[in-house]
Amino acid sequence: MRVALAQMEVVPGRPDINTQTMLRMIEEAKLSRADLIIFPEMAIPGYLLGDTWEQAAFLRDCEYHGRQVIAAAQGITIIFGNIGIDWHKTGDDGRVRKYNAFFIAQNGTLVKTDNFPYPFRIKTLHPNYREFDDTRHFVSSRKLAQEIGRPVEELLSPVSLTISGARLRIGCLLCEDGWSDDYSVKPITITAGYGDVDLFINISSSPFTLGKNNKRHRVFSKQVRETGIPLIYVNNVGVQNNGKTVYSFDGCSTVYNASGEIVACCDAFTEQLKVLDLRLGKDTAGPPIPVPDDTGIDTLYQALEYGTSRFLQSIGIQKVVIGASGGIDSALAAALFAKVLGPDNVLLVNMPSRFNSPTTKNLAAELAQNLGCRYAVASIQDVVDYTVRQLSEAAITQNGALCEPLTITPFITENIQARDRSARILAGMAAAFGGAFTCNANKSELTVGYSTLYGDQAGFFAALADLWKFQIYALGRYMNESVYGRQVIPAAIFDLVPSAELSPEQAVDEGKGDPIIYPYHDYLFRAFVESWHKVTPEEILDWYRQGILAAKIGCEEGLVERLFPNAAVFIQDLERWWKLYSGMAVAKRIQAPPVLALSRRAFGFDHREAQNGPYFTARYLQLKAMLLKEDQN
Amino acid sequence: MRVALAQMEVVPGRPDINTQTMLRMIEEAKLSRADLIIFPEMAIPGYLLGDTWEQAAFLRDCEYHGRQVIAAAQGITIIFGNIGIDWHKTGDDGRVRKYNAFFIAQNGTLVKTDNFPYPFRIKTLHPNYREFDDTRHFVSSRKLAQEIGRPVEELLSPVSLTISGARLRIGCLLCEDGWSDDYSVKPITITAGYGDVDLFINISSSPFTLGKNNKRHRVFSKQVRETGIPLIYVNNVGVQNNGKTVYSFDGCSTVYNASGEIVACCDAFTEQLKVLDLRLGKDTAGPPIPVPDDTGIDTLYQALEYGTSRFLQSIGIQKVVIGASGGIDSALAAALFAKVLGPDNVLLVNMPSRFNSPTTKNLAAELAQNLGCRYAVASIQDVVDYTVRQLSEAAITQNGALCEPLTITPFITENIQARDRSARILAGMAAAFGGAFTCNANKSELTVGYSTLYGDQAGFFAALADLWKFQIYALGRYMNESVYGRQVIPAAIFDLVPSAELSPEQAVDEGKGDPIIYPYHDYLFRAFVESWHKVTPEEILDWYRQGILAAKIGCEEGLVERLFPNAAVFIQDLERWWKLYSGMAVAKRIQAPPVLALSRRAFGFDHREAQNGPYFTARYLQLKAMLLKEDQN
Repeated sequence: MRVALAQMEVVPGRPDINTQTMLRMIEEAKLSRADLIIFPEMAIPGYLLGDTWEQAAFLRDCEYHGRQVIAAAQGITIIFGNIGIDWHKTGDDGRVRKYNAFFIAQNGTLVKTDNFPYPFRIKTLHPNYREFDDTRHFVSSRKLAQEIGRPVEELLSPVSLTISGARLRIGCLLCEDGWSDDYSVKPITITAGYGDVDLFINISSSPFTLGKNNKRHRVFSKQVRETGIPLIYVNNVGVQNNGKTVYSFDGCSTVYNASGEIVACCDAFTEQLKVLDLRLGKDTAGPPIPVPDDTGIDTLYQALEYGTSRFLQSIGIQKVVIGASGGIDSALAAALFAKVLGPDNVLLVNMPSRFNSPTTKNLAAELAQNLGCRYAVASIQDVVDYTVRQLSEAAITQNGALCEPLTITPFITENIQARDRSARILAGMAAAFGGAFTCNANKSELTVGYSTLYGDQAGFFAALADLWKFQIYALGRYMNESVYGRQVIPAAIFDLVPSAELSPEQAVDEGKGDPIIYPYHDYLFRAFVESWHKVTPEEILDWYRQGILAAKIGCEEGLVERLFPNAAVFIQDLERWWKLYSGMAVAKRIQAPPVLALSRRAFGFDHREAQNGPYFTARYLQLKAMLLKEDQN
Repeated sequence: MRVALAQMEVVPGRPDINTQTMLRMIEEAKLSRADLIIFPEMAIPGYLLGDTWEQAAFLRDCEYHGRQVIAAAQGITIIFGNIGIDWHKTGDDGRVRKYNAFFIAQNGTLVKTDNFPYPFRIKTLHPNYREFDDTRHFVSSRKLAQEIGRPVEELLSPVSLTISGARLRIGCLLCEDGWSDDYSVKPITITAGYGDVDLFINISSSPFTLGKNNKRHRVFSKQVRETGIPLIYVNNVGVQNNGKTVYSFDGCSTVYNASGEIVACCDAFTEQLKVLDLRLGKDTAGPPIPVPDDTGIDTLYQALEYGTSRFLQSIGIQKVVIGASGGIDSALAAALFAKVLGPDNVLLVNMPSRFNSPTTKNLAAELAQNLGCRYAVASIQDVVDYTVRQLSEAAITQNGALCEPLTITPFITENIQARDRSARILAGMAAAFGGAFTCNANKSELTVGYSTLYGDQAGFFAALADLWKFQIYALGRYMNESVYGRQVIPAAIFDLVPSAELSPEQAVDEGKGDPIIYPYHDYLFRAFVESWHKVTPEEILDWYRQGILAAKIGCEEGLVERLFPNAAVFIQDLERWWKLYSGMAVAKRIQAPPVLALSRRAFGFDHREAQNGPYFTARYLQLKAMLLKEDQN
């Protein structure tokens, strides 16, 4: 049997475009004499659509386009994901009933599957963590089973097909159905229990996360080994978003043989139609190939470049303006966008005030020179001075009487500088340049709101905001060495102390800079944000007390002791950043640009948060009191 | 039996504070010789917490505080909502198992309920529409039943209590359990089916929406009538948020007698301990009282003032700066914040450019005078001129050569003006004034992004952004007439044509203004955003074709025909706004401030959206082609 893995680029919210892609791939598969073509989950509508699922007109349109795909099933069997609709029932929200569905078409019509209420199969396990909202929109087979009073097992029987005269029994899985470790229902085990299953097919729309494919190989291989049934996994490529967070989809569609070994694998981040001969049994589609590793810096860079490139395409941005401070974050942004859009389409702007050193000004110019980007210098000093004067001198009256004037402190002036750069110069230049301006914030800054709202936090897209500072440096080196093959980011930028250069207290040439001590705080913040079982000051203080903090959060051994002479200093630092993280930084993130997700937890829709202010648990307060008492003894 | 309805203010994320409130109310109830006190759902942790539920330390803290409440159950029975935790099981996300739970405490311990796996009852129906994310965090009794292989009916038996020597069988409901119309599982019917049930108790944390209480009375009364069992509904007050959207909770705790009549009702938006004598049967707690109406302008204003006031308190804002243009939106904002914070704490700033008319400048001054607020004028013209010059004259180089300079068009200058006002002046002034600046956008503007990012869209809070323009006017009149009892908002502001005054094309004195025709577009946009079954151009065009558009969307009859001479003009307008609504406006909303929710669909977390661009369905395109052809005939 010849099988075509259709690792297509799915454009979310565009059934028309996706259907054209599918019809093209079906023709191509037919030319390659494929018997079966497999498309990803939600291939027609896309997966991350927000509440577009509430538009009945959009649902009808998905059905309409689905019919075109079904009609094309002549001389080939087509498996594809689409929304399955029951116009006669409602979901729990009272809206029309929707399923995340698995369709099989042959001879221009859907294959009726025995013992199932619909001419399609539906998703059993609905992810509702991170960016996922499946239960908001779709009814699962778990819920359907309960509703119709049947055990869920009955809805998970294999489907019998005849392909090229041969009978094939397949287990139909949708994405999360293959990730059942934490669920009480195990679709693969249940379906395999029917016996006589030839093949599992998992159609997915699975966003990229660094290291997720390695985990998938472990999880899927184990299930395949246990059941002895080969499995084909087809995932889409492209980018999809849910407003605050942008996800890339890496594809990496994979064929597992009955021993759980990988025998075929599509390229990452590439639209691809892979046609292969499938012999069921141990030697499914040839000899095993090594398990691809996706945890390295090359994968991280690939996801960053692909996600940025496709997102810009999707929103029609072809030119960007980047504030180039001479620091590493904006340098990495410049190198990235110059690669993605070409240097002609990138305008770097250095915006000095009196606090910017010649060192960084020269480095910004050198960076532009190295990249061949457009470059401009636009001072903010005049307008900052004017603003400070205008605000301090503004006559404030009340009930006809003059009130005392406003006082503009140095801290207020710091933020005036940052806003002047972004909201006045970059925004104006971007409009005139015919594009948008970038937000160059990294994840450490975003975690604690170390940025100015409408200032350096602004921009149309925050490509680097899911990267800790240590990853920013590593990617900068990687781009020099492996992307450009020359030092486009000047070496001195890597050696510079990170600094906002907004006051004399942040003079880089005197080695003064940010209050964030990245080699420690990167790891502390990561523990707050990315731990599956979220870490709070209570755990941190407990680990500190036990002397196991570095091991627990992954920073350098001995660093904690070097940084903090005693518990009081440690606690002061911990509380300072926790209060920012769960206080002001939340208010800032509410108005932050979309973040490109790369880690296992990105800010935005992936990390939902309320503006409720910091909280310290009773147990934390006990531990703190104990430690402070010990300090005094 | 004396029952105390504890309509407490719940502070989200603060188990410590909420527990203190509860202990105080328990003491008070004991003094009133109450036998039973009933607190709302999630009284200890709060309900809208984002992903704080993933912090094990927070969960332990909720249990710890729960124990304090349980210990206080001496001489009184306490019913309260808290998170119920099974540390030995996980949820579908692999994290510790959490239930949205109903606790009953007597004699310092939890009442063990027969035939149930936990010493508490759990929520059966999980809302997952609008702002709700229950399934993300909690396991429902539907899912638990399926897991342990029992019918859900078995988990919904009534609980037997002995209160003051009398036996009482109660049905335990949590919020959505009482709203089962759209669910296949009906908790009230199931529990009533056990027979011998004396009383339903529904503990809720139900956010305010205009008209929701009227619907609740219909839904709850009907169920009570059908079962003949009285029902006590206890809801909290306060505000809670999920980042992008702020909800007020109105309380309105209600006692329904066995005929479904209301016999007692707590005040809206007021913390209150209502103690009453409950005789079960027809005359539960006295004679029926009229059904309170909550659909009027007075309720809308009350929710607006309460929500604004409590949100400011919750984030510690005591002073605000408001850009006062002389238009109705900023005038309403000024009147509102002056009421909430006192005029001393409100600084109105008029920021004219050459395009601002003496008319609006005078009206802004008059408004400040009427309210007794602080007032300043800060011109933006100098800096706007400087910026246009600086950007046009900036030398742009590439590879050592000079490139062509940027051209600053009038449209770009419009946005430069808007950003100069907010990001330069208001943000600086707010910091110096010791507060924040407001976003005065209304819902029509936010729908189509008729505002400038980092300009008039900026601010710490958008109190008016869930109000259509017609509601803004109505609330302005209401504040003059019923809140202030005098014309604080000058009459001329109501007569002014709405305008941004950013160019000669928007000269108010010549009657020129916004491109939004509010008497039509308010209703068109409302159909896009607020319809439960979302309306798209396909439905709009179909209704237009049938001549039933005004009736469908609720605008004035005949208006559509007056505005649009033919289908081509109608379609051009429709597509213009749909493209903005689902295009650029989404990008802007991603970075918009938190919105106070008042309607049945507010922007933000309530209305999830992806930046996927506009889409027109195949059926829409057919309709359009047909209509344009008819135009030509």
